Amino acid sequence: MRLLPAVLVGLLAQDVLGRPSPNPKSSWVRKGGRGKRQLNAALKQSAEVVRRDDGNATASCTETLATPIKAPKANIWGPLTNDEAASVVAWLFAQGDLNLTVSDDAGAWDNTVILVESMTPNKTDALGYIDGCKAPPKRYAHVVLDERASVDPTYADILVGPLPIDNKTTTWEPLTYPYTKNNGGKVRNLDADSDDALYSEWLYVIGASVADITLDLWNLTATGADNDTADIWGIDPLWQDDDKIIRWDAFWNVPEDDFDAETLLPLGLYFMSDVTGRDPSQWQLLGWLYNDIFYNSTEEFRAAYFSPGFVKNGANVQGDWARTDQQGPILPKDDAYPPTTIAPTGSRFSVDADEKYVEWMDWTFYIGFKRDTGMALYDIRYKGQRLIYELGLQEALAHYAGNDPMQSGTSYLDTYYGFGPYAFELVSGYDCPAYATYLNTSFYVTETVHTHINSICLFEFTSDYPIQRHSTGKYVSVTKNTYFVVRSVSTVGNYDYMFSYSFYFDGSIAVEVRASGYIQSAYFANNEDYGFHINDFLSGSMHDHVLNFKADFDILGTNNSVQLMSLVPATKEYAWSRGKPRNTMALERSFVESEDESRFNWAENGATQVIVVNENQTNQFGELRGYRVLPYTGTAHLTVKNSSNLVNAAHWAEYDIQITKQKDTEPRLAHAFNSQDVKDPPIDFSKFFDGESLRSEDLVMWLNLGMHHVPHTGDLPNTVFTTAHSGIQFMPSNYFAMDQSRQTVNMVRIDYDNGTTTLVETYGQKNAEATCALNFEPAEPDLYGYVGDVVIRKFPYDPNNPYYETDSIV
Amino acid sequence: MRLLPAVLVGLLAQDVLGRPSPNPKSSWVRKGGRGKRQLNAALKQSAEVVRRDDGNATASCTETLATPIKAPKANIWGPLTNDEAASVVAWLFAQGDLNLTVSDDAGAWDNTVILVESMTPNKTDALGYIDGCKAPPKRYAHVVLDERASVDPTYADILVGPLPIDNKTTTWEPLTYPYTKNNGGKVRNLDADSDDALYSEWLYVIGASVADITLDLWNLTATGADNDTADIWGIDPLWQDDDKIIRWDAFWNVPEDDFDAETLLPLGLYFMSDVTGRDPSQWQLLGWLYNDIFYNSTEEFRAAYFSPGFVKNGANVQGDWARTDQQGPILPKDDAYPPTTIAPTGSRFSVDADEKYVEWMDWTFYIGFKRDTGMALYDIRYKGQRLIYELGLQEALAHYAGNDPMQSGTSYLDTYYGFGPYAFELVSGYDCPAYATYLNTSFYVTETVHTHINSICLFEFTSDYPIQRHSTGKYVSVTKNTYFVVRSVSTVGNYDYMFSYSFYFDGSIAVEVRASGYIQSAYFANNEDYGFHINDFLSGSMHDHVLNFKADFDILGTNNSVQLMSLVPATKEYAWSRGKPRNTMALERSFVESEDESRFNWAENGATQVIVVNENQTNQFGELRGYRVLPYTGTAHLTVKNSSNLVNAAHWAEYDIQITKQKDTEPRLAHAFNSQDVKDPPIDFSKFFDGESLRSEDLVMWLNLGMHHVPHTGDLPNTVFTTAHSGIQFMPSNYFAMDQSRQTVNMVRIDYDNGTTTLVETYGQKNAEATCALNFEPAEPDLYGYVGDVVIRKFPYDPNNPYYETDSIV
Repeated sequence: MRLLPAVLVGLLAQDVLGRPSPNPKSSWVRKGGRGKRQLNAALKQSAEVVRRDDGNATASCTETLATPIKAPKANIWGPLTNDEAASVVAWLFAQGDLNLTVSDDAGAWDNTVILVESMTPNKTDALGYIDGCKAPPKRYAHVVLDERASVDPTYADILVGPLPIDNKTTTWEPLTYPYTKNNGGKVRNLDADSDDALYSEWLYVIGASVADITLDLWNLTATGADNDTADIWGIDPLWQDDDKIIRWDAFWNVPEDDFDAETLLPLGLYFMSDVTGRDPSQWQLLGWLYNDIFYNSTEEFRAAYFSPGFVKNGANVQGDWARTDQQGPILPKDDAYPPTTIAPTGSRFSVDADEKYVEWMDWTFYIGFKRDTGMALYDIRYKGQRLIYELGLQEALAHYAGNDPMQSGTSYLDTYYGFGPYAFELVSGYDCPAYATYLNTSFYVTETVHTHINSICLFEFTSDYPIQRHSTGKYVSVTKNTYFVVRSVSTVGNYDYMFSYSFYFDGSIAVEVRASGYIQSAYFANNEDYGFHINDFLSGSMHDHVLNFKADFDILGTNNSVQLMSLVPATKEYAWSRGKPRNTMALERSFVESEDESRFNWAENGATQVIVVNENQTNQFGELRGYRVLPYTGTAHLTVKNSSNLVNAAHWAEYDIQITKQKDTEPRLAHAFNSQDVKDPPIDFSKFFDGESLRSEDLVMWLNLGMHHVPHTGDLPNTVFTTAHSGIQFMPSNYFAMDQSRQTVNMVRIDYDNGTTTLVETYGQKNAEATCALNFEPAEPDLYGYVGDVVIRKFPYDPNNPYYETDSIV
Repeated sequence: MRLLPAVLVGLLAQDVLGRPSPNPKSSWVRKGGRGKRQLNAALKQSAEVVRRDDGNATASCTETLATPIKAPKANIWGPLTNDEAASVVAWLFAQGDLNLTVSDDAGAWDNTVILVESMTPNKTDALGYIDGCKAPPKRYAHVVLDERASVDPTYADILVGPLPIDNKTTTWEPLTYPYTKNNGGKVRNLDADSDDALYSEWLYVIGASVADITLDLWNLTATGADNDTADIWGIDPLWQDDDKIIRWDAFWNVPEDDFDAETLLPLGLYFMSDVTGRDPSQWQLLGWLYNDIFYNSTEEFRAAYFSPGFVKNGANVQGDWARTDQQGPILPKDDAYPPTTIAPTGSRFSVDADEKYVEWMDWTFYIGFKRDTGMALYDIRYKGQRLIYELGLQEALAHYAGNDPMQSGTSYLDTYYGFGPYAFELVSGYDCPAYATYLNTSFYVTETVHTHINSICLFEFTSDYPIQRHSTGKYVSVTKNTYFVVRSVSTVGNYDYMFSYSFYFDGSIAVEVRASGYIQSAYFANNEDYGFHINDFLSGSMHDHVLNFKADFDILGTNNSVQLMSLVPATKEYAWSRGKPRNTMALERSFVESEDESRFNWAENGATQVIVVNENQTNQFGELRGYRVLPYTGTAHLTVKNSSNLVNAAHWAEYDIQITKQKDTEPRLAHAFNSQDVKDPPIDFSKFFDGESLRSEDLVMWLNLGMHHVPHTGDLPNTVFTTAHSGIQFMPSNYFAMDQSRQTVNMVRIDYDNGTTTLVETYGQKNAEATCALNFEPAEPDLYGYVGDVVIRKFPYDPNNPYYETDSIV
């Protein structure tokens, strides 16, 4: 099946498998199968890995980086050690009942280990340690097995432990308690054949069967040949109706250079196939779609195509509109260095890099990191008192809609791909200030642990506006707004999600996500009701991003309630209103009583405050001490009702705010494999709501951030962070006696009299004379040091020579 | 009437009239009357005024400040020149029919000039000049007369011109066309006696009549004596029912030092009086209120007070909780200098300081400034094409509610006080970065023009996050988010409003307001339904801030429409869905057809995009080129329906978004004196809506920002900007062919291969070597240079010796 003209073959000398992330949602980390194809494409030789945690920023006379400290407690949410991970993998391979094959040797009918990471301890077990004198919770490994040696392949979550491995005491058991589905910790695996058979025996065969048409239409082919010029991939999740597994796949043009623009190059031709079961010979092609006309077979499509009057639309082709490089005349003065933030006296915070423990001013917290959800913060304390036990991403969906089955059928649940493996090295001076302190993160794939260097950044920043000010005829008082940020960025295929947690002097916290990267777009034909026409044959496919964050508040203990306080219009008479009713407003307060009423949206006109309080902790004036949760830079819940794509897999996206009683059995609202069985997913969040009281209980708030995105021409080549953002804030509500930002010295009071300044009070701030001469280099990082990941083989494991001498993924 | 014990007199040696802004909403600028009392208190001798526009920031080898340029056109929205203002004032005093008295000599029964400023030209007159070859519009002065030589005093708006003054051609006429009220440009004046008679013949007399009670209750008196320890002031607007003018006044404690905390010190005693007419002897005390019990007369109140069982509550007394200075232990490392932004190569923008014209990158605009509304931007162009003709604040209200008549009766309409006169000097390094470029602003008061030095700042800033990024297995691309800000801060009494307009590389604009300063609080008793109990006897009085901004868009010309595009849930069948309906979503589009449907709110769940488009300007793909208006950091409209306080004076606050056809007769949606006649105000915004078509017309969007504020303990001593914010954004919507931020060179692409960085592409950015050695001094401004205002006497006027040798207001 070689239909390419010789001239085209010459033009396609580039190995298409070598192109960057041709699949916008490659899943190489999650499993050894289809992912391996992408893995091979993306992996690169790592000649030598240099840890540069402490080498990328220096100041002339002070230490720029965070002060090293020792965490008060071990980070019980941290990763497995190298030895632990290696011993668990070795132990697993020693368990004959698991029938495991090493990934590199495994085929589609072998069982493999696709995840080994630390199991997050139960909160009830953790509190005794972090708040008391009890020993840390016993450590377990969370392992995911890809059990493909079966006609009914499954993914299996198991627990291995306790650790360290001891052949007498260590056992494995199905991990079942955190899931709402009662299936022994197993989920069906719809991807068992998607690496090899799906492409070699199905998609490329179909692509080849119409190669004459694709050449005629676009001068492109997708046949599986090295010189393929088009790509084929399709919907996620697959259709799962009537016990059938149905795919829709689409043809995509391949960019002519390394710019990752394939998701901007749909070609408008789709085919539907029934891929139920593991025998490709039983799979069925069910039809074709082109220009909104459905054809029941290839023959029917072919006959129509070669008939007179068949309407042929053009191909989307890469151009500068799809390249992110600088374009156009240089703007006035833009080649001069722009304003940049420096840390003139070095970092003003402390970090235990081993325990991922952070202290900034009166704030402390630990950082956890997992394959599915990436970074999370634990035991966030302010002035020694915990505010939040756990704060982190739970799941992110991108629900598309369109006139074609590809867009209509796409509802990515991104923890399937994982935020952890895609938390790449951050670019100093661009993603984070050059003076930031960085931490590494690690994730497991195919018997190795990969470490992304510098993939979490920590830094202080001073905003362009103060936190407080007041002027009078005699003085002016202004306080700088210096805040502390923890950030990671995960590029899940085409999209880059930037997660930032910020801490402020007034006791407030901001949780923000911004989205950039390439949109997934639609072919323009007949898509007017679903997007703007944004390029030649391109539609900006409408979609909702919804990203859920768990905020397990502990306000002065774990017994919390949620108070609602609304500003409402009111007509009232008063003792003094002389019998006349007055149109005014008043407050109405209530509590969220139980899980029967704990799923709701932000009120219209922002009229209702949502406050987590401790009903047993009033301040000296009788008010409930609490923290208010408020929208900051826009939020969104899912527009679609009862999504045909998601069914029961994402009920968590239906409301802005959802509150449940904290349970060890409900640690997370979604499972990475919810997409594999959308009708009966491992975790159906709606089952968390079973009417339990929410008054003075340990509560969890599940908060949706998000954006409704209808891409316009300004999303080309990339969506920009300026307007693609969402955020919430947590702020003290009668929690302290007064504003805590009064404690900083970074304020000034200027007194004046008779037109002359009589006093500049700076409260002990260091003045200019006490500051070192500045070296600008911190703001000019050497980006040639950008490295990528460190890979340590876990099986077989040689602790004295652990580096895996093959691959490194940036 | 000297009831103070001798010991107290000694403690009160400080002149209470010397305290800073005792009245939170002093109106000294607006008129010569009551304001004079505050004026005298606030004014300070200005021994020597040094202009330091160009002296407060230096860099070691580059010019820090903006490059001086010449504006392409004159700023037709700029102020009168000194000569123009002086000549207008002199001309006015020469007009016998106006019967004017110089302010310093004027009493309550004299006519005075309270405003002389430039009249904003009609847009229809302006366009011929700024877009064509026509001469600039004829210049006129807008003058406000305080006509108090009458039993029916009025404020009169008049126009004087054309300018320059020529005794043959210059005339005055009532200014009527911009107002909806047909009253010859006149508004009744409810304040004619509020400087002298109100206090000396009424409020202090009443205060003295109960001095024995106030001493017993609080050990305080308010009698008008120099050693008064309490203050009296009341509601705004006054009650205006049944042809009566009714006041409610309250007693307030006076802070013991200069901290401006009086609005935190209510005492809980209120009295009601009928002050209809200009004869204080006819005014009537109508009753007293204490602890929610109304007394019909002083006698009744006195009898009750001295009866057994009378419940006496305590006084709110200043303490550290009300002081903004640093308090508490110094935080870890906080005395080290925090991160700060520097401009290593100086400013990268250009300014014509005389014409207040600004160029940054591809953005240009002019700045106007008026007494009522402060700063506004005109003729905002991007890449040479105007986006917005006028963008600026229109009015700000703060509507309180409470169980007591003081809070319930307070609904400040802040342009009555004016944002211009209170736009004080900004604090370098705190309100704006130390490297900012500053402009001055001026305003008229009592035959002088005051100039606030450095009261507008202009600066570039680079945010802590990029504007664009994308990672792949082969490269990472990231672009810095450097933006440009124009800022002013107006402290209207107790509150500090920070207004920021920001411009971005992607063509977006952000409009933001943040609020800090002292809250106006309530006495705690019986106020539970209106606020939190936040200090000893203090309630955080609930209130709504609503601030309206006019955005007169001109998208590719003046013929614009507003398109609404909603994401809606949908159940649909498709050609490919095999007869099964699918639950998905789709877009619904419509236009705002006319002023009958042009007042609405942001849709629930952010579902509806609001886009200003030009229906005759489609892009090459057939989409309407436009700019989208979207909420950014929260907005609010007024909670109260049909406010008894405001009646017809603030219908503009009722919706989030309101759109009208642009008319020269509707330049502003409120009048500074709307509060003087709330039933029939000079400008009733609801009358703008008369059904006119809004398709392909010159449109104005009136956009409400705001915050619902229920102060909690964290608002003590000052509200903080972190959570008291509101903002909207304007972003291109299919306006360009692609994202415009691709034009900046402040991006990087890092290519990598085999774990090694192979290329760091910086697109011609200056590298570190090309940057000067840094002098940190720009970040360490000498705040002893904080000056205040320059005052130039306009009448009599000596251009060679213009400085007014008495007063200076910071």
